[in-house]
Amino acid sequence: MEEKREQVRSVTKSEALFTGITREALIALHETDGVGKLSIANILLYGLSKGKGALRFAFDFLAGDWRDMGLHAKQAASIVANMRPEAVERRLRKHEERGMRLVTYLDHDYPEMLFQISDPPWVLYYRGNWELVRNPAIAIVGTRLATGYGRKVTEDIAAGCAQRMTVVSGLARGIDAAAHSGALRAPYGTIAVLAGGVDHIYPPENKALYHDLVEQGLIVSEIPPDTILRPGLFPLRNRIIAGLSYGVIVVEAAKESGALITADLAIGYNRDVFVVPGQITSPRSIGALEYLRKGAIPVLDETDVFRAYSYILPTKPGNPEAEEASKQTSMPTSNLTSDEALIYNFLLDQPFSIDELTIRSGMTFGHLHSVLLSLLIKRRIHQQPGSVYTVL
Amino acid sequence: MEEKREQVRSVTKSEALFTGITREALIALHETDGVGKLSIANILLYGLSKGKGALRFAFDFLAGDWRDMGLHAKQAASIVANMRPEAVERRLRKHEERGMRLVTYLDHDYPEMLFQISDPPWVLYYRGNWELVRNPAIAIVGTRLATGYGRKVTEDIAAGCAQRMTVVSGLARGIDAAAHSGALRAPYGTIAVLAGGVDHIYPPENKALYHDLVEQGLIVSEIPPDTILRPGLFPLRNRIIAGLSYGVIVVEAAKESGALITADLAIGYNRDVFVVPGQITSPRSIGALEYLRKGAIPVLDETDVFRAYSYILPTKPGNPEAEEASKQTSMPTSNLTSDEALIYNFLLDQPFSIDELTIRSGMTFGHLHSVLLSLLIKRRIHQQPGSVYTVL
Repeated sequence: MEEKREQVRSVTKSEALFTGITREALIALHETDGVGKLSIANILLYGLSKGKGALRFAFDFLAGDWRDMGLHAKQAASIVANMRPEAVERRLRKHEERGMRLVTYLDHDYPEMLFQISDPPWVLYYRGNWELVRNPAIAIVGTRLATGYGRKVTEDIAAGCAQRMTVVSGLARGIDAAAHSGALRAPYGTIAVLAGGVDHIYPPENKALYHDLVEQGLIVSEIPPDTILRPGLFPLRNRIIAGLSYGVIVVEAAKESGALITADLAIGYNRDVFVVPGQITSPRSIGALEYLRKGAIPVLDETDVFRAYSYILPTKPGNPEAEEASKQTSMPTSNLTSDEALIYNFLLDQPFSIDELTIRSGMTFGHLHSVLLSLLIKRRIHQQPGSVYTVL
Repeated sequence: MEEKREQVRSVTKSEALFTGITREALIALHETDGVGKLSIANILLYGLSKGKGALRFAFDFLAGDWRDMGLHAKQAASIVANMRPEAVERRLRKHEERGMRLVTYLDHDYPEMLFQISDPPWVLYYRGNWELVRNPAIAIVGTRLATGYGRKVTEDIAAGCAQRMTVVSGLARGIDAAAHSGALRAPYGTIAVLAGGVDHIYPPENKALYHDLVEQGLIVSEIPPDTILRPGLFPLRNRIIAGLSYGVIVVEAAKESGALITADLAIGYNRDVFVVPGQITSPRSIGALEYLRKGAIPVLDETDVFRAYSYILPTKPGNPEAEEASKQTSMPTSNLTSDEALIYNFLLDQPFSIDELTIRSGMTFGHLHSVLLSLLIKRRIHQQPGSVYTVL
């Protein structure tokens, strides 16, 4: 894989098919060391210039044929070696042994959303339920060093979003892990896009989550197995997170956080950026909050996301019961009767005596008394000296 | 004062002057029990219909004249009693004794901004420095039951805003008090608009702040002295807070909080609403955050406010030194050298070992060591086993 960011013009799927290249040849090129995304694009453009089916017999090409396409001698030799039948066989076995499956740019089940980005992956490796890429998806990203607040709201919002959309993240520490955890058991589930190979568990503490994702979700990577993980792979991974998703929710991110790269990519792909507000004094929120400044959509709960995609989302949530349950955890007046909620809301803004509450609520003293008692039992309010009540 | 919200058409200043009504007569009407804002508007409209100078001799009008304008017998009698020379004299003495001054709708020093609202006050009472109403102003409002976070960011943002704008609030507990405190000693200062009379200190715990405002700021009220404070006066007060200001910053506000009334009034007056983000799990922030949903401008610091009014604000802050000082309190990398800030920002996102920091920073080991030591001494970072550093 090359890390150069200059891009030759992108090759459409029909152009790629026109060259006659086979998915096996595309995989062989993709898995050849020293042949990067741009080299493959150049090969396809060359084939395109040579007419229909020019790359059909790529497996029979000699080193000179590859060099004619502008590749170096070393690249050409590696490709030829990598296209020998025994090499193809070895790769197939390796994929199979590791339980990984492949989808190429040429396949009917390649994710539609990735055709819309400027540098779509040629090959994707996966483990788990590929059907998840058919769902409308929302990415949730943020700092590895999440606060308790960040993890909690990420789990809640992920669980909420996954009632109607699949949650995409990067299986990193912190916000990513919380996003996967929150969405894992919800109807639309969750997809992890890895920076390393699809069989490479990183970071190690997410091992259990990784296996849960293999069982109940989907793990995707563009990176061939055995590729050594290096920093340059993270931005490449981030573009797939953004590319698979309608939008990216940034929960907590310090300035210069990697999560902001994903948000910037999302903007570049004409996707939406959402921000979960946090305290302006929190260094872990400030990078996210700066997107609010630039016009990102604030997210108080999943409805803010659904509202943005109401034209395209399934109208019925996958599992209304689970949705109700997820709502309840985020509402301060959940599990309260309407009278309890009324009193609770009065007390939220300022403490009141029972006399003041009688006037404000219009309840009889006896009924108000029973409502206050119930709120005390539910540990939602506190009684201070002089029968003054405050919220807990 | 009437509390009816239906409004007769508003009367322009030149229309009011056309009727020939004197400021003394306007004050007498305003201070007559049972004669509200709308009654005064009706009197002026009546005068307008009768031709130039029709109300010039209001002090000589008999009860029948007032009744001809549609007033009840009781109102008419009260007005006549209140316009007797000894009543005028008594009122003047009262205002003087209490150190309050008056500005009427007819006066050249009536606040320009209040001419633009649909129901401007006919009379304003004040103590302190009236010149402050000439400044561009920003309101800061929020819950009485502010959190520590709410009070802290309010003070910081008020101090920041008051470098170039006058901060308007309501001298209530919580956010209001923090706004006045933060802005009090800054160049553009602060105005408190009271719901009760300008000499009525409420709540009692803000007594010291009240006196500071009389000395160094401005206390304003529409309410005649000796008016008994009642809930209906608070929304009337809130309209003056919104009316005096280009925009309203909501810091913390629960659902249904009174601060949101001020924000709604601001929208009605075509002013801006700003919101200081907070945690979405905080019941005290949720009312404010819902304005973000509706498109309010997020405020991370005073620059977000200044940016909105860059076309109209003085380009030079009143006191650059104080501005610098106020900035420093809100920046996580304040008081750090550029090298210290660089390392600190690395560590904000994730912990690093000293080896990793050497590579990332490009600093020599010796220099990096001294930077880390300095950050440790400043208590900004923490050293964990294995020479791994995290932020504090």
